Amino acid sequence: MITTDICIIGAGPVGLFAVFEAGLLKMRCHLIDALPQVGGQLSEIYPQKPIYDIPGYPSINAQDLVDNLMEQIEPFHPTFTLGERVENLEKQDDGSYIITTNDGTSVHCQVVVIAGGLGCFEPRKPEIENLEHFEGKGVAYMVKNPEQLRDRRVVLAGGGDSALDWTVFLANVAKEVTLVHRGDTFRGAPDSAEKVFDLAREGKVNLILQSNITSISGNGHLQEVNITAKDKTVRTLEADNLIPLFGLTPKLGPIADWGLNIDKAAIAVDTTDYSTNVERIYAIGDINTYPGKLKLILCGFHEAALMCQSAFRYVYPNQKLSFKYTTVNGVPTF
Amino acid sequence: MITTDICIIGAGPVGLFAVFEAGLLKMRCHLIDALPQVGGQLSEIYPQKPIYDIPGYPSINAQDLVDNLMEQIEPFHPTFTLGERVENLEKQDDGSYIITTNDGTSVHCQVVVIAGGLGCFEPRKPEIENLEHFEGKGVAYMVKNPEQLRDRRVVLAGGGDSALDWTVFLANVAKEVTLVHRGDTFRGAPDSAEKVFDLAREGKVNLILQSNITSISGNGHLQEVNITAKDKTVRTLEADNLIPLFGLTPKLGPIADWGLNIDKAAIAVDTTDYSTNVERIYAIGDINTYPGKLKLILCGFHEAALMCQSAFRYVYPNQKLSFKYTTVNGVPTF
Ligand SMILES: Cc1cc2nc3c(=O)[nH]c(=O)nc-3n(C[C@H](O)[C@H](O)[C@H](O)COP(=O)(O)OP(=O)(O)OC[C@H]3O[C@@H](n4cnc5c(N)ncnc54)[C@H](O)[C@@H]3O)c2cc1C
Ligand SMILES: Cc1cc2nc3c(=O)[nH]c(=O)nc-3n(C[C@H](O)[C@H](O)[C@H](O)COP(=O)(O)OP(=O)(O)OC[C@H]3O[C@@H](n4cnc5c(N)ncnc54)[C@H](O)[C@@H]3O)c2cc1C
Repeated sequence: MITTDICIIGAGPVGLFAVFEAGLLKMRCHLIDALPQVGGQLSEIYPQKPIYDIPGYPSINAQDLVDNLMEQIEPFHPTFTLGERVENLEKQDDGSYIITTNDGTSVHCQVVVIAGGLGCFEPRKPEIENLEHFEGKGVAYMVKNPEQLRDRRVVLAGGGDSALDWTVFLANVAKEVTLVHRGDTFRGAPDSAEKVFDLAREGKVNLILQSNITSISGNGHLQEVNITAKDKTVRTLEADNLIPLFGLTPKLGPIADWGLNIDKAAIAVDTTDYSTNVERIYAIGDINTYPGKLKLILCGFHEAALMCQSAFRYVYPNQKLSFKYTTVNGVPTF
Repeated sequence: MITTDICIIGAGPVGLFAVFEAGLLKMRCHLIDALPQVGGQLSEIYPQKPIYDIPGYPSINAQDLVDNLMEQIEPFHPTFTLGERVENLEKQDDGSYIITTNDGTSVHCQVVVIAGGLGCFEPRKPEIENLEHFEGKGVAYMVKNPEQLRDRRVVLAGGGDSALDWTVFLANVAKEVTLVHRGDTFRGAPDSAEKVFDLAREGKVNLILQSNITSISGNGHLQEVNITAKDKTVRTLEADNLIPLFGLTPKLGPIADWGLNIDKAAIAVDTTDYSTNVERIYAIGDINTYPGKLKLILCGFHEAALMCQSAFRYVYPNQKLSFKYTTVNGVPTF
């Protein structure tokens, strides 16, 4: 069991900055994120794109902002559980909470801060009969460990960067790689597409364009993939693995069942301190809503600051909070 | 008459960033500040000190933050009136406002944004009998134009940088320069103090330490300054000008008389859009108050963003506001 003052769900820019504001008030933080890396939307969706409305930065690449935030919070030694999704919240008799993830990690904390952005990123699933039936039995939506695909017959589907990149990578690993794509041009980077076309010409990958996977079958484990072309012709491929790569889509997920006031897929909060209707639970960043709300990074920073002033009472019930400027007081680490 | 969309009173960090948020919505800004430079408290009080709680900057010097903000708003070509204090606000029949300064500059605008921080910095006045009686008649609290002191007998008072710097500067301009200081060491920069001691040794300035000015007199214009030493001895100097330089202290000033709801020397606002009780007048940054308010730079940035969304309706009454990310839309200049 991990023990901390504040457990922050979501390590996007807002969750990260909350660590800094908490640290100034001597509160320790543990962060949990379903993604394998910190940074939320910035690192997952647009790491190399410039943001122009971070105050004091005429322009900053999204990933650089995340890196700077990590450096800024370093003095307060936050701890992280990455690649796990928060599933459960259990109130203890003394008012504190135990949070558990899908992998069974549990965190005991005085205050819960939901900085979950648009929610958990979950794979976008194509419409294929029986698909969910074969999940974990040959069907997966991401490549966690490519070695598990060595010498297997792998079918990939999709037209973006993930589909292209994994096709190229697995060409040297799998026994047979097939990429199925609805169109005949790719959304992903032109040079990745070029590489895939080259591999197809060399016979190293099997490229099936203008087609969709329509059904799959197998006896306990995936064995066959049926592919229908635009001209309605159907072909059947033998396959051990099917990996549809159609991107990630965020879902509020289990958070929706915690008794919080939800308003249009966001958590309603009080702007005095960004508290929810449940004591000791706060919501900051893209995941909250209130009159005037803007889903901007800079707004989440403000919300984090006010939230910490309020959360302090639960972590240090007998202490009076004194407000000090960082310029005057510095950043006293712990 | 200057014409603009939004007139921002106060060119501190929050007023400056408001130009950026306004610019994204195609609203033009004019800023007025009583200080001769932009940057508010940061440039006036602690330009060389590091700030640690600007999100994304583990540390940034206050003046650098101001410089970066100036660069960030440059695409929107804000205009400035510096060194003038806003005195008056006059509502027009169509709902717009005309703002006037103590120097008679006037600005016509659709929306007024008060980003006045702690208020107008005003000179701290020493306790000298009759002092205000001689204001403008030999007594002033800043040196606006040193040429007006050429060949005059000038008495300066104070122990900080301004007092030291003007003593050095005026040694070559005035007929006679006297610096009166309460202590015998100076708060100002050591090398400036050194210069003043050197000039005193060379007989180029008259240095009177451990003393206070206790009274002044003159017939319609300042003629004599009475100085009392710690040991109670009193001496009288003939003088044309007296310039007490005891620093600046902020005052809410005329803003207090505009019919705005004032709560503990701050302007009460609605957190939906940081509007005041008077239509078309907003208050952002240190000068406003609401439940949970923190006087932090990062909070003012958030307030500026929400304010602009609301102000838009007065500048473009017939247009629908569409919210776009800078990363997606860039920074379309005008
Ligand atoms: C293309 C694009 C461009 C943008 N441009 C700008 C811009 O220019 N300026 C700007 O201010 N904003 C911009 N944004 C919006 C900005 O990215 C968001 O406002 C910001 O990411 C919100 O930060 P956050 O920390 O609240 O949430 P997020 O960044 O969404 O992070 C939330 C994290 O919580 C995790 N999470 C959620 N639920 C759970 C759970 N149950 N268990 C574990 N982890 C969970 C998610 O995996 C995610 O990593 C843009 C967004 C996009 C998509
Ligand atoms: C020593 C010190 C250290 C600090 N450290 C930090 C820190 O680490 N982090 C942090 O976030 N904050 C810090 N602060 C606070 C921070 O400086 C303020 O929050 C910030 O300056 C507020 O910005 P503003 O734009 O609202 O107002 P200000 O910076 O106060 O600017 C307001 C401007 O309005 C002008 N003005 C007012 N009335 C009028 C008028 N009638 N006519 C014309 N002009 C007018 C003033 O001249 C002034 O220039 C510190 C402050 C001090 C003094």
